[in-house]
Amino acid sequence: MDDRPSVRARRSQGERSREAILAEAARLATVEGIDGLSIARLAQAVGMSKSGLFAHFGSKEQLQLATIENAQRIFDEHVLAPAEAARTAGERLRLLTDGYLRYVEGEFFPGGCFFASVLSEADTRPGPVRDRIVLFLDDWLGRLDSTIREAQAEGSIEADEDPADLTFELEAALYLANAQFVVSQSREVTERARRIIGRRLARA
Amino acid sequence: MDDRPSVRARRSQGERSREAILAEAARLATVEGIDGLSIARLAQAVGMSKSGLFAHFGSKEQLQLATIENAQRIFDEHVLAPAEAARTAGERLRLLTDGYLRYVEGEFFPGGCFFASVLSEADTRPGPVRDRIVLFLDDWLGRLDSTIREAQAEGSIEADEDPADLTFELEAALYLANAQFVVSQSREVTERARRIIGRRLARA
Repeated sequence: MDDRPSVRARRSQGERSREAILAEAARLATVEGIDGLSIARLAQAVGMSKSGLFAHFGSKEQLQLATIENAQRIFDEHVLAPAEAARTAGERLRLLTDGYLRYVEGEFFPGGCFFASVLSEADTRPGPVRDRIVLFLDDWLGRLDSTIREAQAEGSIEADEDPADLTFELEAALYLANAQFVVSQSREVTERARRIIGRRLARA
Repeated sequence: MDDRPSVRARRSQGERSREAILAEAARLATVEGIDGLSIARLAQAVGMSKSGLFAHFGSKEQLQLATIENAQRIFDEHVLAPAEAARTAGERLRLLTDGYLRYVEGEFFPGGCFFASVLSEADTRPGPVRDRIVLFLDDWLGRLDSTIREAQAEGSIEADEDPADLTFELEAALYLANAQFVVSQSREVTERARRIIGRRLARA
């Protein structure tokens, strides 16, 4: 590893630039679709040459997959990481659902939650992009489900709640809140989802 | 009006053909996006000449709007009309939600509910297509809300339920069921939504 300052600065600049490019790519993907995300279209949006972007990403599909990885990093940082501070599974469940609503309100992407936006486009198109989004969803829903089971084990959620049904109910409120927030741009929507989820968890 | 049999047959054939073309257009729109729905793309899909389709629809936007009207007709026939048979508002609410789930299971469109699919694409793109889809949604959510209020007036739903919150909860389950059904192609999803909505309405 070369730690001379000039090399470190160059590398770090290259990484910032890659991250900035992928953030723009993710924003574009939630408006124009991830299928519309080509190296040519992105070059136009970020004012770089096609050959420069081609050197970064190699192909449209690699660009799409790198964009998804970067969106996952943003999701991890803003939704998953804050929930790690919880001392109980019940508290973690509240932090996960509230973290998702804050991520929607944070408007990281103009088309709302990156994964909800891309899923609705890619759901009928088999391939690596669809597979990667389904993997994200499986992980997210699996995390809600296992957190509910942990909360049952610690006694903060009733043992007779069906974890899969409760996961569906929480995700349903989050998913609709995201869709309605994009259309209305109003926090009334996310506040409503917050209230409904709070009541549902209080009853569980 | 010319009622000679040959003219009636011709007209009726013309209408059937227009309907068949628009059904194909709606299927395409839920897979490739309504923005991808051009006269050229549709001509290729239905094996007609571009000039023939142009004579029918005039422009890409007119084609998109005609496709939405035709999808609305399918929605009215399969979701709204069956609920008219209800004798009480409480029963109508159950028929509306169940009708939506049967419409999802009926797979009229490969990308699931036409309106959910097109909304997630058009939500960030101002214009007549987005306006028309938002009009559909306002009508659908308004119908759930007013049916809940009627059910409260007749006493089949508790007076202390907030109609807007209950509308959100029902729509959330329907909206997520549609999205998960497209990905999993499994009735387990719609059955779960049915069970959750049934329990929620029993508690209301």
